[in-house]
Amino acid sequence: MSGSHHVPALPLGIQRPTLLLDKDKAIRNIEKMAGKARKSAVRFRPHFKTHRSAGIAEWFREFGVDAIAVSSLDMAAYFADHGWGDITVAFPVNLLEIDKVNSLAAEIALGLLVESEEAVQFVAAHLSHRVSAWVEVDTGYGRTGVQWDRPDEIVELAQAVVATDRLAFKGLLTHAGHSYHAASKLELDAIHHDSVARLAYVRAALRAEGFSQVQLSSGDTPTCSVVDDFTGLDEIRPGNFVFYDLRQVRIGSCSEREIAVAVACPVVAKHPQRNEIVLYDGAVHLSKDSLISADRTPTFGHVAFWEGDGWGLSLPDTYVSSLSQEHGIVRTTVDVLEQVHVGDVLIVVPVHSCLLSYLLHDYHTLDGEIIPSQSTVGVAT
Amino acid sequence: MSGSHHVPALPLGIQRPTLLLDKDKAIRNIEKMAGKARKSAVRFRPHFKTHRSAGIAEWFREFGVDAIAVSSLDMAAYFADHGWGDITVAFPVNLLEIDKVNSLAAEIALGLLVESEEAVQFVAAHLSHRVSAWVEVDTGYGRTGVQWDRPDEIVELAQAVVATDRLAFKGLLTHAGHSYHAASKLELDAIHHDSVARLAYVRAALRAEGFSQVQLSSGDTPTCSVVDDFTGLDEIRPGNFVFYDLRQVRIGSCSEREIAVAVACPVVAKHPQRNEIVLYDGAVHLSKDSLISADRTPTFGHVAFWEGDGWGLSLPDTYVSSLSQEHGIVRTTVDVLEQVHVGDVLIVVPVHSCLLSYLLHDYHTLDGEIIPSQSTVGVAT
Repeated sequence: MSGSHHVPALPLGIQRPTLLLDKDKAIRNIEKMAGKARKSAVRFRPHFKTHRSAGIAEWFREFGVDAIAVSSLDMAAYFADHGWGDITVAFPVNLLEIDKVNSLAAEIALGLLVESEEAVQFVAAHLSHRVSAWVEVDTGYGRTGVQWDRPDEIVELAQAVVATDRLAFKGLLTHAGHSYHAASKLELDAIHHDSVARLAYVRAALRAEGFSQVQLSSGDTPTCSVVDDFTGLDEIRPGNFVFYDLRQVRIGSCSEREIAVAVACPVVAKHPQRNEIVLYDGAVHLSKDSLISADRTPTFGHVAFWEGDGWGLSLPDTYVSSLSQEHGIVRTTVDVLEQVHVGDVLIVVPVHSCLLSYLLHDYHTLDGEIIPSQSTVGVAT
Repeated sequence: MSGSHHVPALPLGIQRPTLLLDKDKAIRNIEKMAGKARKSAVRFRPHFKTHRSAGIAEWFREFGVDAIAVSSLDMAAYFADHGWGDITVAFPVNLLEIDKVNSLAAEIALGLLVESEEAVQFVAAHLSHRVSAWVEVDTGYGRTGVQWDRPDEIVELAQAVVATDRLAFKGLLTHAGHSYHAASKLELDAIHHDSVARLAYVRAALRAEGFSQVQLSSGDTPTCSVVDDFTGLDEIRPGNFVFYDLRQVRIGSCSEREIAVAVACPVVAKHPQRNEIVLYDGAVHLSKDSLISADRTPTFGHVAFWEGDGWGLSLPDTYVSSLSQEHGIVRTTVDVLEQVHVGDVLIVVPVHSCLLSYLLHDYHTLDGEIIPSQSTVGVAT
């Protein structure tokens, strides 16, 4: 668009905020996690809520993946339609969608999460096919699941499950999401080991009541990225690792070079008097997820230049400082401002990659392939 | 779903997070704003980025609306396809979409925003049809536009516009978005009057240079809701007022009873030991927009019961305290907890209504009509 620009223009014909995917990085991220799971002899059941794409899902098959986790029944139906036959819906079972549960259970090996007798009784009374049930255990995150230090309650729930005809008790499942507040490898190691120990404690209570087969499932990207040995678990379910993002860099799960998605954004205005650039890239493209700096200012993304065959590292002292519905305001330096012109495209490295496919729908790989995500092909309503 | 519930169940067959629309409230909101514009003899050019729905757009025609604002060229194309013939794209013109500009300009009376000579020259050189140009003026918000206290720069820009063949200079346009930080009617009145005075100051500079026709366009829901007399302006462009939301209640633009949209959410778990309810309603449904309380805790929505023919007022001491991708955690009271069961539906009153149609796609009116929004019928990529 402008003659004096020293960085190469994107070859992809970008006109509006566009989700870029570096396929090589994503495949390396999958390979690394699959290798760690294999070394520890645990089942690798990746969470597909991050990419929500049947095309990207195929890349996992190369590494022996045939069991997955998703976060809704609609997402389970989407992946079942694309040939996935073993799916855990890692979300408290939604009783209002019992018809979707039944149609899925007729087709695939379906796993559900239960955390109340109310849910167990309702589901058992309405199921027309056999389904696996995991009891969700809260090992410290405090979001969902029965608290690990109430083993009697968990035993009662497991007994309620086995008393039904249609539910097969599978084991204990946790999401140690408090790992997202960690700030060091030491802290992540401690969260992981505490969480596994708490699951093992509950399993001991179940064994004392005669439960012989109790699998343990855990999975969050921070601990799964940092811990090398998953001994004690039967399966891991990380999701975000396929793309990573700035939040994971801050936690210490990955380096910036491992982030596999970014958003290409048109430059629509410049304000040199306050060192700002305005991007066509708002809350409807990036989401309002932010990282908070030490001085309490929020960052909605870092900014990079296109470098010919991919995007470069974040530019120094340059970040998305605020978002409106369609506007993204970038605070930057005189040096960057001089290189950027209205009509150029900048790359925003995201704070949270999991929401991007909901907002931007298609992935554009660096060699020009377009890979749709679930929402492009229709969200069930 | 549960026998002991004292509030009526929703008649709408809700299974998953669903966007509810109280049509009567929305029409009253439109009627009120249209009436105020008529009384002040200003053009009412509502911003359609809030609803993004051709069906809802029709309700505006009843009140004489035939000119609209939108926030992207794709949205302009969507409404042009639905019979709207006078559309301002209230966003700095995106040079990379010049082909879309040209195809729209061939069909409708299109208005664009310019704030740099770079953009004016590029657009003028590539336009194949005549287009209206508004110079965007920053009257204090600090997001986009040329600062009002640089009238010479604005005069030069207007001169650059009139020097082109294809661009017709229309006037000065502002979005006084700093009204979103106001906390009283007094403050909103002051922002409105300052902003209009600043536009008038710039117009005086233009008149001194021979510009005789200079329209003034302003529009943000807080000031347009609170100010009764728009004297001094030629048009107003509020958008959010059609639905309002909790942020507007806090600013003082509306009462809670005027909020016309909410999200119906399945209850999937209860944690009485910490007075929490878990809803199927996450960041992918509600967005991460929040209100910050005096004690710095964020609120992502209030919670109400269905009351037979609509939702009630927010329940006391009950709010969405955190959001994950699909989970919404509600902090509440013992009293509310006792009335709510797993499998019930609660209503979340949103902090920000403008993002909901992007995330939830269809509107469900209280009498069961389903009204699609732009994204349902396909986002151009």
